[in-house]
Amino acid sequence: MLDFNKPYLTGKEGHYIYQAVLSGKISGDGMFTKKCHAFFEQRYGFKKCLLTTSCTDALELAALLIDIQQDDEVIMPSFTFVSTANAFVLRGAKIVFCDSRADHPGMDEDQVEALITPRTKAIVPVHYAGVACDMDKIMALADKYGLYVIEDAAQAIDSFYKGKDGVKKPLGGIGHMGAFSFHETKNIMSGEGGMLVVNDEKFINRAEIIREKGTNRSQFFRGEVDKYGWVEMGSSFLPSDIIAAFLYAQLENLDDIQKKRKQIWDAYYVALKPMESKGLFTVPVLPDYATNNAHMFYLVFNNLAERTDVIKKLKDSNIWAVFHYLSLHKSPFYTDKHDGRDLPQTDRYTDCLLRLPMFYELDPTVVIDFFKKL
Amino acid sequence: MLDFNKPYLTGKEGHYIYQAVLSGKISGDGMFTKKCHAFFEQRYGFKKCLLTTSCTDALELAALLIDIQQDDEVIMPSFTFVSTANAFVLRGAKIVFCDSRADHPGMDEDQVEALITPRTKAIVPVHYAGVACDMDKIMALADKYGLYVIEDAAQAIDSFYKGKDGVKKPLGGIGHMGAFSFHETKNIMSGEGGMLVVNDEKFINRAEIIREKGTNRSQFFRGEVDKYGWVEMGSSFLPSDIIAAFLYAQLENLDDIQKKRKQIWDAYYVALKPMESKGLFTVPVLPDYATNNAHMFYLVFNNLAERTDVIKKLKDSNIWAVFHYLSLHKSPFYTDKHDGRDLPQTDRYTDCLLRLPMFYELDPTVVIDFFKKL
Repeated sequence: MLDFNKPYLTGKEGHYIYQAVLSGKISGDGMFTKKCHAFFEQRYGFKKCLLTTSCTDALELAALLIDIQQDDEVIMPSFTFVSTANAFVLRGAKIVFCDSRADHPGMDEDQVEALITPRTKAIVPVHYAGVACDMDKIMALADKYGLYVIEDAAQAIDSFYKGKDGVKKPLGGIGHMGAFSFHETKNIMSGEGGMLVVNDEKFINRAEIIREKGTNRSQFFRGEVDKYGWVEMGSSFLPSDIIAAFLYAQLENLDDIQKKRKQIWDAYYVALKPMESKGLFTVPVLPDYATNNAHMFYLVFNNLAERTDVIKKLKDSNIWAVFHYLSLHKSPFYTDKHDGRDLPQTDRYTDCLLRLPMFYELDPTVVIDFFKKL
Repeated sequence: MLDFNKPYLTGKEGHYIYQAVLSGKISGDGMFTKKCHAFFEQRYGFKKCLLTTSCTDALELAALLIDIQQDDEVIMPSFTFVSTANAFVLRGAKIVFCDSRADHPGMDEDQVEALITPRTKAIVPVHYAGVACDMDKIMALADKYGLYVIEDAAQAIDSFYKGKDGVKKPLGGIGHMGAFSFHETKNIMSGEGGMLVVNDEKFINRAEIIREKGTNRSQFFRGEVDKYGWVEMGSSFLPSDIIAAFLYAQLENLDDIQKKRKQIWDAYYVALKPMESKGLFTVPVLPDYATNNAHMFYLVFNNLAERTDVIKKLKDSNIWAVFHYLSLHKSPFYTDKHDGRDLPQTDRYTDCLLRLPMFYELDPTVVIDFFKKL
């Protein structure tokens, strides 16, 4: 069976874990956590990076930082992972779901303004498949209405947005905060793992406090206060330095990993794009303001039946391809909380989108051959 | 400098991490997570074990499971780690702090009943230093008033309570739920890490759902439902299987680790107990219903000045000893939320308790010699 995903080892993960253990400190914020923070801050110019145990937790930290209160409204796509919504629901927010674009599963930026009310507190754009949302439009709305923007950059490592000013900006570094995932299905991974990027400096101090169980321990260790205590509500967001050690080995090989994934992605694109004319599926569209980080290669079929048929045939050919997500506005948990609006593009991607195998060590030939013979 | 704590490697941690990676699945709930769950369920008879990224997260999962609502009251000691309180504060609870015992830093069980009101939802006994609270008294109150009991067993691995029925019960397995920590300072550790033990079967199904981001994914993989979706508010509590692999290597050596730690603890006790007569400090008291898991050896001094003086002298002798906790009811965050009751024992332990170095590879002679010469 050809796997859908296979975690890739660069070779130094075990060595770095051993180093972390020898350092005598493998709880959170050890030497490799600091190395990972420095890597991201230097490479992408992020103001403040904070590793977390998951992207879910990074989003929860963001929700605490913007002080979400009961019945505050948060606008996000319905076609996303449950954690995007859960993080804000846990704080009492009402989720206002936005439909996807017709040409791309990302949130339709042009539909956001109509969803803003006096209770709206934040917009959470999801950079689906690592492809940028049109951040100029979203940031303009945030400015106009005084909203926070939390980028769900779970899939968006090493991907960029080039807006009207022509400057290439790293995803996760544009909104007030950005959340990344290092789950094993991601380009760079540590099994489970995540990171919050804080771009608005006013949040940095509280981010450190909330992440350290609501204590000012970070300030204490920098000598800024003479004892530390419980100063705010918080949680434990720190991953073990074992996780950071693993992640750092991956980060050192980021360029190699990205190069290889782009080769695979391009091979898919070159082979499958011409097949669009047969009318069975379409391949991904990249807006001209977005770069491609080769996180995912997906096809969009005409309907659920045709997708189901292809999944079955792939399985019969020993190829494991998977679909996601299920429209959150129609989920058992949220259907009676949703305001009833129809979100047709979301439902279309729910029924019709299929992800092809995508990992560093993949030879895509067998998948491409399958579609040639289809 | 003699460290206060030093993480101990049993030798197989790296090997198991390598195995986890080779398995092709290092996200949550992989092969080593299952091995850890089985270990605990078999050794201690726990009904359901669920690894989490920290004890903090295990407590948060418990708070979600008992459905804490705004202004629900939760009774717990003030002399505890901030996470005990944060987990419930995050859900809107009011913390009602109970004083410590005169003979032990654990919560004074005899003061709990007076703190119960119609808004009380749960009692959270903390088994300080791995020494059991008097659970018969606490469970009787829970029965009488219909309250939940969440054991904070962060320090209490492999420790037991023998109540009126004469049966030795593992801590964490007595209340409705129990939360354990595998932080690097604990007997068994994985850097950061934790576990929720669910003893009341009615919580098991929802525990799995909330831990899997509010989805019924666990049921799906067992074939109990034909698709999975968002069915409830949830979060991501799963640690990477890298963490579980590390932890499993420790668990395989639990008996050896416990034996060694008890030798160190006993050496401290035998040497320091006779020095109590000098009037400078007292050594730990173990109630006859509690076993000793040798998590911690602490001294209680007469006042802050005398403790401060000894810490300084220890430091001058290159021995690192630490104090904790700071009374939560007097913390910057909670002082104006506390009901104003004086908690004199809590304040006494805050000022007077000192933890001595305690780890597997420790030779306690140098510390004992220090006190002999004091």
